[in-house]
Amino acid sequence: MGYVRYSVEALERFCNDAFIKFGFTREEAAEITDVLILAELYGIQSHGTQRLVRYHKSIENGCVRIDAKPEIVFETPVSAVIDGHAAMGQLTSVFAMKKAIEKAKKVGVAFVTVRNSNHYGIAGYYTKMACDQGLIGISATNTESIMVHTGSRQAVLGSNPIAFAMPAEPYPFWFDAATTVIPKGKLEVYHKADKELPSGWAVDSEGRECHIPEDALMCIDKKTGTGGILPIGGISEESGSHKGYGFSMICEILCSITSSGATSNHHKRVRGEGSGTCHSFIAIDPAIFGDTEEIKKNLSVFLEELRSAKRIDENIPIYTHGEKEILSYEKRLREGIDVDISTVGEMAAICKYLGMDTVEYLGDVDLSSAKETTYTVAAIDK
Amino acid sequence: MGYVRYSVEALERFCNDAFIKFGFTREEAAEITDVLILAELYGIQSHGTQRLVRYHKSIENGCVRIDAKPEIVFETPVSAVIDGHAAMGQLTSVFAMKKAIEKAKKVGVAFVTVRNSNHYGIAGYYTKMACDQGLIGISATNTESIMVHTGSRQAVLGSNPIAFAMPAEPYPFWFDAATTVIPKGKLEVYHKADKELPSGWAVDSEGRECHIPEDALMCIDKKTGTGGILPIGGISEESGSHKGYGFSMICEILCSITSSGATSNHHKRVRGEGSGTCHSFIAIDPAIFGDTEEIKKNLSVFLEELRSAKRIDENIPIYTHGEKEILSYEKRLREGIDVDISTVGEMAAICKYLGMDTVEYLGDVDLSSAKETTYTVAAIDK
Repeated sequence: MGYVRYSVEALERFCNDAFIKFGFTREEAAEITDVLILAELYGIQSHGTQRLVRYHKSIENGCVRIDAKPEIVFETPVSAVIDGHAAMGQLTSVFAMKKAIEKAKKVGVAFVTVRNSNHYGIAGYYTKMACDQGLIGISATNTESIMVHTGSRQAVLGSNPIAFAMPAEPYPFWFDAATTVIPKGKLEVYHKADKELPSGWAVDSEGRECHIPEDALMCIDKKTGTGGILPIGGISEESGSHKGYGFSMICEILCSITSSGATSNHHKRVRGEGSGTCHSFIAIDPAIFGDTEEIKKNLSVFLEELRSAKRIDENIPIYTHGEKEILSYEKRLREGIDVDISTVGEMAAICKYLGMDTVEYLGDVDLSSAKETTYTVAAIDK
Repeated sequence: MGYVRYSVEALERFCNDAFIKFGFTREEAAEITDVLILAELYGIQSHGTQRLVRYHKSIENGCVRIDAKPEIVFETPVSAVIDGHAAMGQLTSVFAMKKAIEKAKKVGVAFVTVRNSNHYGIAGYYTKMACDQGLIGISATNTESIMVHTGSRQAVLGSNPIAFAMPAEPYPFWFDAATTVIPKGKLEVYHKADKELPSGWAVDSEGRECHIPEDALMCIDKKTGTGGILPIGGISEESGSHKGYGFSMICEILCSITSSGATSNHHKRVRGEGSGTCHSFIAIDPAIFGDTEEIKKNLSVFLEELRSAKRIDENIPIYTHGEKEILSYEKRLREGIDVDISTVGEMAAICKYLGMDTVEYLGDVDLSSAKETTYTVAAIDK
């Protein structure tokens, strides 16, 4: 697959201007862009510019309401419940985490839950917001149904990621992971590479272990109602399937149950309505446990002990969570970000749709090798 | 393996009287017994009477200090940090969760962390305390190092269980799971059955996938410093190893980092000192999110949707977390509890050590098939 390298500034400019053209204010466009670009910088391409087409589609079909504003519908000193009113997920979520941080700084801890939102990008963006201010940040989101829970062949739960960040030196502990064993994107990678799926990743519509990526993808994309991706821990309790299923449930409870919103299996697909996505944002001031500097130092020492443990392979370093992302961040900030040619093709289509000058924003790129999708220029012309 | 069936009352009487003989007050003995018996009733035998020998040994070698009382060393309206002073883990933990519940009822949420404690039994006992009062309960504990984290062949983290409970009908959501792919006990079961370990469970001292249960057990029991059990997700990031490792880190942070206590790799083995075990207790009043009855109903409906999803095998029900434990509870309360003969042998040794009448407490049992361990009568006679 070919790539085009862009500077961070070039990608930011493209995203910012595109979201303004979609109808967002300058400030809103900058907030959404920041979430996308952090994903790119952290090396989480699946949640970077690659998602633009999804947002484009959501805006077009009215799933995302551009003029909607999040509203606090219930509040206590340690909590808030927010109705996103189908606004862009990132905007509601930045608002929600800011509210959690503000409350945690006053009372030590705050739980903010959100209903009626939309896809919010990487969960870890919001935990970083808290962590950057010296707090522990936790965030989770439910998603469309994709996980077949232990004993089931029907996808009810979502990929349901949980993120957790806490300040440390030289870099924070920053964990962000779906509670499915793999993301859907991994199925696509295996499909493209014509590789068989290992056991414990997916089941087909009959509930059998699925080794053909295409079959698993079809179950998910066609919304057949059966088949899907397994929880962390695979298909049986013996390998810990019920544990991944349990962590996915904790995500679901923190998001949809506490916000009285839609569980993953009740996300909507109705034109003009939001998806019903629910999120959770928790901020904790370590000062509620004593001396924050000592606590930070203790975590830093422990993370270093983990990194310097005896390795399985001397040549393969042991990472702590968030370390790879920081290394990626520094490298990409310096060297630029590689965007695969098919995504560039999708961005070109967005340019065309919005009346933006493709060459000015994306350069004079040969898109002949870009994979045609429902989002590329040809499709939009129809 | 042979079993002896006891009524709940008989086991309770034995545990209560044994702990009183060890030097605990009547009230303390009842608290410890209640934690052990709930594990038996829930079918979690690994944490029931089977653990008595471990507690016996800990009391004998001064790891557990019978006269110690937990002390609050730092406190805010939403938090407390408790020093267990090496008291029995269950006593400090009941005290800590009561404190969390008391605070949560006032301000909506409370985080209580504990350092310098000891083994506390099943994490889920404490979440049940909160759940029984209509609250969300969360608990976690670190343990001796047993988990080799992603890329490492050295055990640094513990089995680090996380438990979460929330009220629902007809039974609550009650999740309690180690963040290792399997508990150590599973290695013992495979060892006894002469079965090979599947991939993704354990590594040997060289960091190779370990298929021989004895080798993995030796690494753990001999404290060789290398080898151990893998996180949920197995050995590679491709199967989600970093996710289990991450959840184990969250446990560690909630327990030892926030309490400024000992991380799993710094648990002590010094005569007369506690193990250094750390715990975490969180209570959340669902009322901080609005109408508690509506929230409870929504969770109940969702749990039923999960249970009634399309099954992989029509004959194998889909469970939600805590359901099996409730079924086990009802059955064992009615029919009694089967204790394996080797554990009965250990209990007989405790009787002898404490001057309790074995036949009166345990019945006239033929112990000839009981496996001799370092804890049985013969060993204690030495």
